[in-house]
Amino acid sequence: MSLIVMKFGGSSVGTTERMQRVARRIADYHEAGHQVAVVVSAMGDTTDDLIDQSKQLNPNPPAREMDMLLTTGEQISVALLSMAIHQIGHKAMSLTGWQAGFRTDAVHGKARITDIAPERIFKAFEQGYTVIVAGFQGMTDDGEITTLGRGGSDTTAVALAAAINADVCEIYTDVDGVYSTDPRVVKCARKLNEISYDEMLELANLGAAVLHPRAVEYAKHNNVRLVVRSSFTQNEGTSVKEEAVMEQGVAVRGIAYDKDVARISILGVEDVPGVLATVFGALAAGEVNVDIIVQSGVLNGKADFSFTVSLSDKDKAISVVEGIRGEVSFDEVTSEEDLVKVSIVGAGMVSNPGVAAKMFEVISGLGISIKLVSTSEIRVSCVIAADRIHDVVRALHTAYGLDVEEQAFIGGPKDRR
Amino acid sequence: MSLIVMKFGGSSVGTTERMQRVARRIADYHEAGHQVAVVVSAMGDTTDDLIDQSKQLNPNPPAREMDMLLTTGEQISVALLSMAIHQIGHKAMSLTGWQAGFRTDAVHGKARITDIAPERIFKAFEQGYTVIVAGFQGMTDDGEITTLGRGGSDTTAVALAAAINADVCEIYTDVDGVYSTDPRVVKCARKLNEISYDEMLELANLGAAVLHPRAVEYAKHNNVRLVVRSSFTQNEGTSVKEEAVMEQGVAVRGIAYDKDVARISILGVEDVPGVLATVFGALAAGEVNVDIIVQSGVLNGKADFSFTVSLSDKDKAISVVEGIRGEVSFDEVTSEEDLVKVSIVGAGMVSNPGVAAKMFEVISGLGISIKLVSTSEIRVSCVIAADRIHDVVRALHTAYGLDVEEQAFIGGPKDRR
Repeated sequence: MSLIVMKFGGSSVGTTERMQRVARRIADYHEAGHQVAVVVSAMGDTTDDLIDQSKQLNPNPPAREMDMLLTTGEQISVALLSMAIHQIGHKAMSLTGWQAGFRTDAVHGKARITDIAPERIFKAFEQGYTVIVAGFQGMTDDGEITTLGRGGSDTTAVALAAAINADVCEIYTDVDGVYSTDPRVVKCARKLNEISYDEMLELANLGAAVLHPRAVEYAKHNNVRLVVRSSFTQNEGTSVKEEAVMEQGVAVRGIAYDKDVARISILGVEDVPGVLATVFGALAAGEVNVDIIVQSGVLNGKADFSFTVSLSDKDKAISVVEGIRGEVSFDEVTSEEDLVKVSIVGAGMVSNPGVAAKMFEVISGLGISIKLVSTSEIRVSCVIAADRIHDVVRALHTAYGLDVEEQAFIGGPKDRR
Repeated sequence: MSLIVMKFGGSSVGTTERMQRVARRIADYHEAGHQVAVVVSAMGDTTDDLIDQSKQLNPNPPAREMDMLLTTGEQISVALLSMAIHQIGHKAMSLTGWQAGFRTDAVHGKARITDIAPERIFKAFEQGYTVIVAGFQGMTDDGEITTLGRGGSDTTAVALAAAINADVCEIYTDVDGVYSTDPRVVKCARKLNEISYDEMLELANLGAAVLHPRAVEYAKHNNVRLVVRSSFTQNEGTSVKEEAVMEQGVAVRGIAYDKDVARISILGVEDVPGVLATVFGALAAGEVNVDIIVQSGVLNGKADFSFTVSLSDKDKAISVVEGIRGEVSFDEVTSEEDLVKVSIVGAGMVSNPGVAAKMFEVISGLGISIKLVSTSEIRVSCVIAADRIHDVVRALHTAYGLDVEEQAFIGGPKDRR
């Protein structure tokens, strides 16, 4: 007998038929003698529909009231899923976040879990119930209802698994697991059997959106074994854990890319001490998230900087920079869109010299110029023009020995939290 | 400055525009210096939609899970209404039933309020908030979410008014107030300025569905002053209280009718002691609600009974009676539909002899035969054929001096809870 946490995203319970399939899946575990706690997101488009409704009444609703509104989405899901499980003859008990013991801080809209008191869940287990917990939500010590923000249901599942000391936390999604790259682009992408927390974090942040980075961090911190698998097949999925076995001779685990990139360059900056701090301090104060930062060499006392931001932050970034002309002297600000950041990720990289060099070689070999580069211990990222990204990903996938003969990707609509 | 409870039904907040109108109305009271607690039902068809969704997954869902599901309807309403109030520059705080301190017993689907702890509401008042409370719901001492059943939001409002010692509890609905009869039938129906709790109870039970009987009982028991008024006009409405002033010479306050009536007759019953107890004991055990019961005189040791039930209980009632043939000897069971129960209601009746006689006279004068009669201190009801009910109601309305020159009825869709 194992203690298992299963998490189902919004698209996995988006229709009556899918809800029934999920109920059957839970009942199978229960029949096999496992104790099961399930975390569910709001069904399909429920959250977006509620947001639309609220905007009609108030374009800037108080965050507290928004939490009051949005938490109903998950409450509906848990009640309906519980009913579906009863229908096939099993005992299930739905619980809101606060009923399940989730305590959070009071930052409405993006609260953090401060404590979980799982007594009620254990009591339900003793009474033979499968427990269905509303994801994405909790309560403050003052009895205020909060939400954990985007990706919150993944975090709920991992935190619950840690709190009840579950053997495994299974994240059910619309793909078979974590892939070496986007299988829609590379037909011979391989499903990974294992991946480390750190590699998963790099891939999650880089756009392979099967698992929310915050949940991965929480899992790493609490050493929760995660499995990412499909709610539409019985396939094994991908195991996410501390030490993941690398296949012989494979330094790179996966290849990610992210099209939400804009480049800003500040040209002819007078090279006085503190210039970088002034520029990026102003950007931080303007709440612009900067990703890659590159400074060229100094020529005649002047330097060029480049940095990347998300597309939605581009205009704000430019106006922030123009706004500090009084403090920093420079010639010109330029910007560029239609870019993509492509990254190779792998814990084996650090012990394999030449991994980065091979990446530059492959990209150059396609006649594509690299605009910016950034590296970490387990990642190399290059910013290039967006137009030939699929060729680049395919070539890198082959070059790093990741291609497999057949591919087992089963697609479906994206889970959103 | 007054302390006011305002209750809005589902149709009063059924659209964005109506929600905004309600918000404006609340803000007006707030600006006038009143402290306001608002109770809201689920918007429009939300509850029915949720029930439909649940039936697809489980035709007989556990009552606990149904409560978990349905309480989201009111939670959505309170959050949205609060946002609408903020939008026009006022402070509002939405509260679920449990947050507002509503404790109930554990009878899911039709829980009764056991206690209200309004500390949080008073605290919100001190901070300058208007409080928006989810109707129809509460929590058990074990932290289980419950619903109060149909009519629950009226009861929530009245109970809240009692708990916070409000000066008045205003029930906003889609009509101007309580009318002397259905203004859709009688053009010159009069809006009543005042009505007693007992009269309101008789009218409420008899189909003038502006106010739930349970809420009226609760108001009577706790001496809460109720006002029924329209959410679409600024008209005064009807005040419901212990002693309502009768206009000079008017013994009857109103005329109600109910088409949900079926007559069952048991003919040729052998007149032995205990027969009535056997028949109506069996009906009660079969959960058939019996309204009027009439026994004719005994002839040759045999008697005839008639009783009325709601249309939906007719077939069950017949089969219950057939099922006790072994215990009770009778010739035949007959039944009749297409009936209506018309009632005159008025606290002045008891001191005005001849009120009932006039009713029989009016009905007979139209050439209509009366099938069953039942009376209480403040009510006389006659069951007649349904086809000419509108003629009967108009004639009675005139005969009891209730007609007014002009009528101010403003119609709208019915509020359901």
